[in-house]
Amino acid sequence: MAAEFLETTSLRTPCNELNCECKEGFKYITNFGGDNVQCEKCPLNQARSQDGWRCVSCPTDAVFNPVSLKCNACPDLPVEREIDGRIVETGQVCRVCTNSTFRVGNRCERCTAYLSLDPSLTNCQCPVTNRKGGLCFASTITPDFNVPLTSGDVASLYLSEHLEAAYTMCQSKQNSTACIILSNLCALTWYEFDGTNANRACNMYKEIEANTPESLPMLYYEEGNGDRILEDTSQTTVYTFSPVSYLNFYVARYTINGEFLGVSPVTGGLLQLCTDTTKRLDAAYTFGTYYSQSNKLSQFFILLNQQLDLKFTRNDAEQMYRTPLRILNYVSSGSSVNTGSDAQDWQLVRRFFLVDNVASGPVSPPEYVRYVKSIEIIVRLTETGDGTIYPPYFNIEYDQVSLTSANEGATISPTFTVTYWMTQIKFRRDFQIATGTLSTLGVLYAGYRAWVWSKRAGKLAIDFGTILNFIFFAAGSLANVFFIISFGIAFYFLVFYKDQDVLFLFHLRDLAEEEWLALFGSAFALKALQIVHLIVIQCTADVFFIDWERPRGAGQVTDSKKPTGSVSIWRTYFVANEWNEIQTTRKVNHIFQIFAVVFFLYVVGFENVATKDPNGSVIKDSTEYMAAMSTMFRYGIAGSVYLIVGVVQWIFFTFIYERFVEDAIRQFVDLCSMSNISVFVMAHAQFGYYIHGRSVHGRADTNMKEMFEMMKREEEDLCGQRGLVPNTDNQTFMMSLPRKLRLKYEQVMLPVALENAGAVGAPKGKNTANEKQVEAYAVINRFLSAFIDHSLKDLDYVVKDKTLMESIMDTEFFDASEKGIFYNDDGHSFDNCLFYGNEGTLLLFDTLLFCIIDLIATNFVLAGVITYIIIEIIAIIRRSGGEKNLAKKTLVDERFLI
Amino acid sequence: MAAEFLETTSLRTPCNELNCECKEGFKYITNFGGDNVQCEKCPLNQARSQDGWRCVSCPTDAVFNPVSLKCNACPDLPVEREIDGRIVETGQVCRVCTNSTFRVGNRCERCTAYLSLDPSLTNCQCPVTNRKGGLCFASTITPDFNVPLTSGDVASLYLSEHLEAAYTMCQSKQNSTACIILSNLCALTWYEFDGTNANRACNMYKEIEANTPESLPMLYYEEGNGDRILEDTSQTTVYTFSPVSYLNFYVARYTINGEFLGVSPVTGGLLQLCTDTTKRLDAAYTFGTYYSQSNKLSQFFILLNQQLDLKFTRNDAEQMYRTPLRILNYVSSGSSVNTGSDAQDWQLVRRFFLVDNVASGPVSPPEYVRYVKSIEIIVRLTETGDGTIYPPYFNIEYDQVSLTSANEGATISPTFTVTYWMTQIKFRRDFQIATGTLSTLGVLYAGYRAWVWSKRAGKLAIDFGTILNFIFFAAGSLANVFFIISFGIAFYFLVFYKDQDVLFLFHLRDLAEEEWLALFGSAFALKALQIVHLIVIQCTADVFFIDWERPRGAGQVTDSKKPTGSVSIWRTYFVANEWNEIQTTRKVNHIFQIFAVVFFLYVVGFENVATKDPNGSVIKDSTEYMAAMSTMFRYGIAGSVYLIVGVVQWIFFTFIYERFVEDAIRQFVDLCSMSNISVFVMAHAQFGYYIHGRSVHGRADTNMKEMFEMMKREEEDLCGQRGLVPNTDNQTFMMSLPRKLRLKYEQVMLPVALENAGAVGAPKGKNTANEKQVEAYAVINRFLSAFIDHSLKDLDYVVKDKTLMESIMDTEFFDASEKGIFYNDDGHSFDNCLFYGNEGTLLLFDTLLFCIIDLIATNFVLAGVITYIIIEIIAIIRRSGGEKNLAKKTLVDERFLI
Repeated sequence: MAAEFLETTSLRTPCNELNCECKEGFKYITNFGGDNVQCEKCPLNQARSQDGWRCVSCPTDAVFNPVSLKCNACPDLPVEREIDGRIVETGQVCRVCTNSTFRVGNRCERCTAYLSLDPSLTNCQCPVTNRKGGLCFASTITPDFNVPLTSGDVASLYLSEHLEAAYTMCQSKQNSTACIILSNLCALTWYEFDGTNANRACNMYKEIEANTPESLPMLYYEEGNGDRILEDTSQTTVYTFSPVSYLNFYVARYTINGEFLGVSPVTGGLLQLCTDTTKRLDAAYTFGTYYSQSNKLSQFFILLNQQLDLKFTRNDAEQMYRTPLRILNYVSSGSSVNTGSDAQDWQLVRRFFLVDNVASGPVSPPEYVRYVKSIEIIVRLTETGDGTIYPPYFNIEYDQVSLTSANEGATISPTFTVTYWMTQIKFRRDFQIATGTLSTLGVLYAGYRAWVWSKRAGKLAIDFGTILNFIFFAAGSLANVFFIISFGIAFYFLVFYKDQDVLFLFHLRDLAEEEWLALFGSAFALKALQIVHLIVIQCTADVFFIDWERPRGAGQVTDSKKPTGSVSIWRTYFVANEWNEIQTTRKVNHIFQIFAVVFFLYVVGFENVATKDPNGSVIKDSTEYMAAMSTMFRYGIAGSVYLIVGVVQWIFFTFIYERFVEDAIRQFVDLCSMSNISVFVMAHAQFGYYIHGRSVHGRADTNMKEMFEMMKREEEDLCGQRGLVPNTDNQTFMMSLPRKLRLKYEQVMLPVALENAGAVGAPKGKNTANEKQVEAYAVINRFLSAFIDHSLKDLDYVVKDKTLMESIMDTEFFDASEKGIFYNDDGHSFDNCLFYGNEGTLLLFDTLLFCIIDLIATNFVLAGVITYIIIEIIAIIRRSGGEKNLAKKTLVDERFLI
Repeated sequence: MAAEFLETTSLRTPCNELNCECKEGFKYITNFGGDNVQCEKCPLNQARSQDGWRCVSCPTDAVFNPVSLKCNACPDLPVEREIDGRIVETGQVCRVCTNSTFRVGNRCERCTAYLSLDPSLTNCQCPVTNRKGGLCFASTITPDFNVPLTSGDVASLYLSEHLEAAYTMCQSKQNSTACIILSNLCALTWYEFDGTNANRACNMYKEIEANTPESLPMLYYEEGNGDRILEDTSQTTVYTFSPVSYLNFYVARYTINGEFLGVSPVTGGLLQLCTDTTKRLDAAYTFGTYYSQSNKLSQFFILLNQQLDLKFTRNDAEQMYRTPLRILNYVSSGSSVNTGSDAQDWQLVRRFFLVDNVASGPVSPPEYVRYVKSIEIIVRLTETGDGTIYPPYFNIEYDQVSLTSANEGATISPTFTVTYWMTQIKFRRDFQIATGTLSTLGVLYAGYRAWVWSKRAGKLAIDFGTILNFIFFAAGSLANVFFIISFGIAFYFLVFYKDQDVLFLFHLRDLAEEEWLALFGSAFALKALQIVHLIVIQCTADVFFIDWERPRGAGQVTDSKKPTGSVSIWRTYFVANEWNEIQTTRKVNHIFQIFAVVFFLYVVGFENVATKDPNGSVIKDSTEYMAAMSTMFRYGIAGSVYLIVGVVQWIFFTFIYERFVEDAIRQFVDLCSMSNISVFVMAHAQFGYYIHGRSVHGRADTNMKEMFEMMKREEEDLCGQRGLVPNTDNQTFMMSLPRKLRLKYEQVMLPVALENAGAVGAPKGKNTANEKQVEAYAVINRFLSAFIDHSLKDLDYVVKDKTLMESIMDTEFFDASEKGIFYNDDGHSFDNCLFYGNEGTLLLFDTLLFCIIDLIATNFVLAGVITYIIIEIIAIIRRSGGEKNLAKKTLVDERFLI
């Protein structure tokens, strides 16, 4: 047996396979189903009986028809057997129904089919012209009862057929089913009513409601009362996140014919036109989940036309609350009152339908299918903060699609969303107060910093530079303030939204969210300004390497003309090279930082916490519904992770790595000592840092053997200490410098600066430029050495500790205009003019950068990549700027700064 | 109007709201539905008529019952109106059905209810004891007809009730419906049959099939022919990926009662127990999509019990192919033949059911629900490679769950998978041949490299070191071979699977996949060995910095005792420091590399290409079905992206960055020239690299002014060229060194090496150690300077170009045992002992590392993070090892290597 091919058609004709019938004019002999059927031809002029097993003669008033091989139809009732099964001897006879009966099947029954409105019509013979919608009207009905579905529509066949009957029965007899049908039809017409056209379903509804409201299901809420209805606080159900609460909506469903289908919960996708897994569908009703579903559908004709009521549990006695619906298509006197934003104008209603494929058009099946294009459930928290809510309501929008285009493959995209909100008046007030207060403090602090700066820069009056600096300082401190507020809010919402037991918090929206976003954006922009300022300041600092080495054999230091020739410049090159390298060294490893952050957020899955639902778990099953990501939550979680990783790294590098492995800054200070070179940095005109690198051995420019000996002597404590002040260890200082020193320095550097500035225009002058540089270098070296050695009469300094107050306020109280002041420091203060000492600012910038890219791209990996690239670019700018500055100020050729 | 609370129960009792009935003993006066009903009490001893609108007296044989207020039941037929509607004057009478009729509703009809098997029973009065399953049996039937569902089960009520009748009707009358029911019951019992128990549905089926096969639907394929059935090649449909083909399965459905429901396509989740969006459900039937669906279900009682047939289109005349099913639960004579792997033993069948909630148990509703636990569709490509397939078949496994546990919330996890495969015999043969051949070549090449190494290392015989090195070289070349093969296969499959129009390729599986994985793993492991080897070799190379500087004022170079004291060591420190820094410099930026790779794979979405389906697009909608990721495809795409980004970076750095921005290697060579220091590297004992750094000015240890002048002279071309050979520019060389030089070097270094080795044990000897070091430094400096200067009589060298052959084969043909040979190079050869010159090896290692982590974790971001960390760790090991080596060999203190 190879393969088995069957005819497709073989299964489609059930007669062959499953059932066979005898032809007309043949009676059954046996019939065991399938093809096990035997037939026999009836005698001439006889027809097969109704049960198929006999042949009968036809009555005179319904003679045998030789074409169809059947008896003609009786006027009323053909009879072959009496009521007790006796066979009528003559074969078939025709009988007439009597006594107000009419034919039902094969006997006569009492008239019940038409509910007669005319008491005079006592029998079943309601004239056809009086019949409509299952009713027998007293008079001939108008055949062209033309009812459009909504204003502007063509007539609806279904309405024409059913509306009048439903109205009549409901109005005159208070028939419940008729009243329900009338309500259904009103809902189908989107609740439109006016005073003019009496044919409107809702006009009829309103008319009956005005007279006998108790017979009708309520459809309309009181007009112009939308705000009051939606601000009802009688519900006392408390909603919580743990345990998770659900929106217990129930729906009472009716067919279009008024049949009641029962009350059922809405879970399982009862209101959602799009299919999905039950788990994901039901996530819509988990309280606090910002749900959104949207799918393209091309098959939507399988859906039943149904009428829905929404209900709602209440805590005491589990009552039901009829949920208000806001039909956006509703038109009242030509204006779409429900599309406005003012709830007071809204006309809320109580019933809706999902799909109408019955009533839209003057033919059957109708030309159009009407469907719910969007359902939005809106849940609003009360102001009390005790977990209660105002009545939730539905925004419903209908749309229609033509049958023709649907058959040609057009798709529809129905949406289903659940939105939560709360009043934000209090939040916005608090937000504005906090921002105002802290910003004022920030600007005050910036003013203070600008004052300190102007003092250090030796400014005597407020000039343009001071104002510019004030702006940058203000940018920096406002950036910090804005970051604290925006991140604080994000973190607060993240923690308290996910963690709230009793609901009191929902997402910000509209204006409140925009304000928050603006603050976040400003924080980043201002921080970026601060970074620019930082780089400019650092790349323009004055650096000089003081070489203490004296030429061999020259006893007199004062005679400085010839012997300088024999002091090697290589130590200076070495130190300058190292200084250049540590310029962009960071306290934390920013590559590892980004990798770790992306690892935690994306790989471990912390980003899953940022969904707009009560689920705060990190690991989420792919079968679960993923609510949309919250911008604010992402900022909260990303900022937290970035800062925590940064701080952990900072602690690790400060307390472990630098102590036990390697400390690039300490190594540099050591190198200065070994190479007999001091570093003199003027960060501002009259303020700077000093690294005392004078060798304790008096010289360093020597061969390997002596170097070994020197190191050994130092290891064995056979020589003095390295400090500037004898018998101390302190090598690093902050300096307040006297004005005279600065003037002298500038005076010496002036020709070099001029040459540098004019170098482009005069390449031939290079030779003299170099000579001037070398000369300047020698002069400054001598001058600064002498200053440090206290050898200048009119320029001197004292060494002292900073007071606690000075340290805290990062300023100097003592006047250094006459005599410079060297403040002892912790060995690290000079890293203020490197990236190393500004890790806090840089880390905050990185955090904001990372978060703002994620805000735009909503992708942590992309944010990580771009953050890395930007950090690298900034480091490159700083490095090359610093290198150029170093070459210019220390007169070391750039070729040695590799 | 504030809120509206309704009683929940008010809608549940339709009597109150929608319909009211008069109580018994009351007749209707009016009835307009709802509560618009008027009733009137009947006179004493009269009952309400059947139509409800009259009161009637009861007949004598069915007197008035004052409790129920109704007439007692007539023995046969109560009549109130004649057939023509005339009212029976006495009220109600009882009539008796005659002439082989029986009561149907309110009149007597011909007997048709029971299909009589006994011709003697001519009327409807089949005794109750003879009735069963809609049949009237000739004799009293056995009441305890006990039919278990499958062996070991308790009896099934449904089978007991229906099996005998179906069998009898099908067997004796060939009734189609009965035969279909019998087939259904056989499928419900998982096709179990044996010779002993006549009560089995399938026994009965087999019995009828043996006699009248044409009356039955075919269920069983020929026994023991599974392989031949599944290797039928009569189907000629060609499956393609563009345009996408579909598996056009159709299903013919029957109810359990034999009713035919029609033929419909399986799309829309007809066979899938789990709900999902239609798009995702239908993805199962897109040809080439490795589909897998698995969900937890807790509600599964809504599913109909249905019987399914599967069909299949064929290209000519669109025929249907009855798809073979392999029921894994099938038991034949106590052995589960279908669970074996040999297709020849399988008993294939034609029908199955999805859920059975009718037949499992001796009560109704049954205790258990049986359902399809897993469906696996298996599609197998033919060997011809023309896009045709063998008949696809279904693996079906059933399971059952008890109603009790299901009511208590137990869930089931049905799965639905589609798997594709093809024969892999040819692939495996090719694979093994390729691996064998290339591996042999790889080992031969490794042998050659080991020979070159032994020559360079000055080995005279094959010793342990040579063998060890051979192993490492073999690891390296085998790693490359394995990488090429495994990556080549992955890339081939990725490109050709996604790009195939006519299907000829499916995923590897089982042994073939395991072999491929093993090769991939081995490639990584061997590459790791090669990296270890590389680091060890580089961290043990002998490096020496030759200082050409001669002390000032000392004319005679030969008198070398005193004057060395005045040559500063700082230039050496500077050069050593820079050398230390370039040790781990890479040609490509590995951080950017990882970021770019993760960016392309994850952010841009190249990883979406790696799904096991024909969809090769990068951007995939979240509503689309995501097929499982293929290990091989991920390797293919990740490897490609990694290598391409690496190569692009390499090109950028080599041809743009190094030329126009910065070349760290070139800068280092420049620095050597400026500082008058040569670098002498012995990578192996008698082979190495030389950077000629002798200053063209004769000295460099000078002050800033002179440095400026020197640089200016060089810029203006006023001095000689930098090359080793006069009037050339070439500063870098490869060296084959004579044995004598090596011996001399080792002899001088021996005391230092001994001191270093014994330093831990003898800390007190530090002083002498240092002295010995200094002495050794001086001796080697003099010795090597003299060698380079051709000043040694018995040790000399020549400079020549490498022949093309030597360059290609990376070896030296000329004997250097007497006279060293310096080969001119391209200026970069010495980077072979740095990471810089081994970028290819490192990049390949990084690629393999990245891919192997992704293989384990299936997460490119995680792979990126871990790759970064491991690369950093390797660099740290290399750097610290290199630093220690440098300190040991060049005698520069580690404190200056910062």
